[in-house]
Amino acid sequence: MEFKSKIRTIQWINNVSRMVDQTKFPEEYVYVDIKTGQEMYDAIKTMIVRGAPAIGIAGAHGVVLYAQELQKENLSFEEFKTKLLEKSNYLASSRPTAVNLMWAVEQQKNLIKNSNSDIDALINDLTNQAVRMENEDIEINKAIGRYGAEVVPKGATILTHCNAGALATVGYGTALGVVRSAFANDNTIQVFADETRPRQQGARITTLELTMDGIPTTLITDGMCSYFMKKGMIDMVVVGADRIAANGDTANKIGTYTVAIAAKYHNIPFYIAAPLSTIDTSIKSGTEIPIEERSHDEVTHINGKTICAEGVNIINPGFDVTPHELITGIITEVGILRPDYNSSIQEAFEKKSPIFV
Amino acid sequence: MEFKSKIRTIQWINNVSRMVDQTKFPEEYVYVDIKTGQEMYDAIKTMIVRGAPAIGIAGAHGVVLYAQELQKENLSFEEFKTKLLEKSNYLASSRPTAVNLMWAVEQQKNLIKNSNSDIDALINDLTNQAVRMENEDIEINKAIGRYGAEVVPKGATILTHCNAGALATVGYGTALGVVRSAFANDNTIQVFADETRPRQQGARITTLELTMDGIPTTLITDGMCSYFMKKGMIDMVVVGADRIAANGDTANKIGTYTVAIAAKYHNIPFYIAAPLSTIDTSIKSGTEIPIEERSHDEVTHINGKTICAEGVNIINPGFDVTPHELITGIITEVGILRPDYNSSIQEAFEKKSPIFV
Repeated sequence: MEFKSKIRTIQWINNVSRMVDQTKFPEEYVYVDIKTGQEMYDAIKTMIVRGAPAIGIAGAHGVVLYAQELQKENLSFEEFKTKLLEKSNYLASSRPTAVNLMWAVEQQKNLIKNSNSDIDALINDLTNQAVRMENEDIEINKAIGRYGAEVVPKGATILTHCNAGALATVGYGTALGVVRSAFANDNTIQVFADETRPRQQGARITTLELTMDGIPTTLITDGMCSYFMKKGMIDMVVVGADRIAANGDTANKIGTYTVAIAAKYHNIPFYIAAPLSTIDTSIKSGTEIPIEERSHDEVTHINGKTICAEGVNIINPGFDVTPHELITGIITEVGILRPDYNSSIQEAFEKKSPIFV
Repeated sequence: MEFKSKIRTIQWINNVSRMVDQTKFPEEYVYVDIKTGQEMYDAIKTMIVRGAPAIGIAGAHGVVLYAQELQKENLSFEEFKTKLLEKSNYLASSRPTAVNLMWAVEQQKNLIKNSNSDIDALINDLTNQAVRMENEDIEINKAIGRYGAEVVPKGATILTHCNAGALATVGYGTALGVVRSAFANDNTIQVFADETRPRQQGARITTLELTMDGIPTTLITDGMCSYFMKKGMIDMVVVGADRIAANGDTANKIGTYTVAIAAKYHNIPFYIAAPLSTIDTSIKSGTEIPIEERSHDEVTHINGKTICAEGVNIINPGFDVTPHELITGIITEVGILRPDYNSSIQEAFEKKSPIFV
């Protein structure tokens, strides 16, 4: 049985990028139309759109938006291409950790570089590729969901961290895609969602999209996970990924590594759910993944109000790296990869072209 | 060298209990005078005063406040004693996990039960005992600090969870007493403070009292601890305790257990700092410690604003139990207890009367 989700996070429509404004959660669920490349850069930076796969699509849309703007500037085709490549690089720099953004923008750049036609035809090609990426993202998520559902025990409680859901992708989810696919066949499964400080994506976003889709969800604070694990109330952990190295080391939202250690201590399976496009085989291990340092206000302020004393120091890494030895499996659109990840990842890329290429 | 702290959390003065109102943090640092037994019950319940040792003193003060009220009721001495014992039991029920509250109220009840004099003399005795407890609490904390400072490496960064500081005690602190004593001799040490959701005592209280006392402090969110441990930025963990079982299992603020698991995984020493009065030898292990379930609003709301979707489930355990095998040592006023805790705890109680009895 296929799960029907109510959520569509991002969509190319009437020559603009329409997205759900995720900074308004949980009070409002509203759409915003992004009409220029700079607006897209800002939307990614300020996390109006967030989640590695959704950001990838946003990047692809952003290239089209810049192309539409440059089209009005009366440039030669070569000037147009040069300027658009510059704008594409700028877009790709909006969030450094997510590999999907770089990957998606790279796909658009390849089209630009290889184009021998004209501006109109190139814009048409860029638009078609962006829309194809959207559709493929949903198909890939559903494939991840099908594979993942096979390892979800009957009646399981699944703990997740941050939001790797429909709202982190185009519309189905990676970690929460596994939840949706499992729930479609067994409506006794339920989710425990980590709040995920500092930005509270678990509280603001995961609880929102799961309750919208009718899946029973319990919100817990980040420090509580071990308490519920020890009580036997958590059967598995499934989280998303921002970048996966060739050896399986996985960068994901800060706090993920702590959950992975707790899961290991309690012998609870810990899965990553992510498309192959999240895997960056150009880096050997997690030590090479750059960790974005984010604004201190995210730690010191909640809803505009300070929560701590003045004069305190802050360090705010946006991500951490969970080492491969803590990961039970990586659920992808071509199946579940198991240790040794160096070989299983290589095999996954060799045996079958991923859908999303 | 002795550390001079600016903080006095609770004090019996002019026949009232004067305390710092900790619900006003971090915006305001103001005192409130608690004048009746019911006000004291509410102050404990709503966490105007919090921290196991401070709550103990608050309980002792509360018995005196009830005694002052009953004094006006024209009761016989026996009626007075019976009613005061009832009120004492009521006070002791305001927070179920903290053993210090029960212990301190029990000391006052013993005075009441054994008194053969008259109402005025008994009130005088109860007052003197409460004031003695205050002074002893500070002396005990300083002894804990001295012993603890011996295991703090030069230039160490100490991670702590919640607030086991001057503001959790009468005025020096248990875990933060160790910090203060270490800092007095080595001003290159510093503290990492876990925010400690849901109530954010680390953010609101620990950062406040440490910056007031000039000790460098970095605030981190609860999920970040493992990230900094892996980077080698944490040299030891010191936390307080709400109740310690005979085998060393320790109940402390929710999230402590997760930190202890992370410390173990990174081979970082994990210490409890607590007076012997926190040890409850009547219970064999942590499984017997009742865990207070607190209001759901603490999880779903911050500063009066909701952070999650409607319809989400909440479970809000106030404490968790860190098993003895994760604890490097228990720093008490008679020295650092080491595993096997069953014997070291028994020894501590036998070899020397604790100061605080």
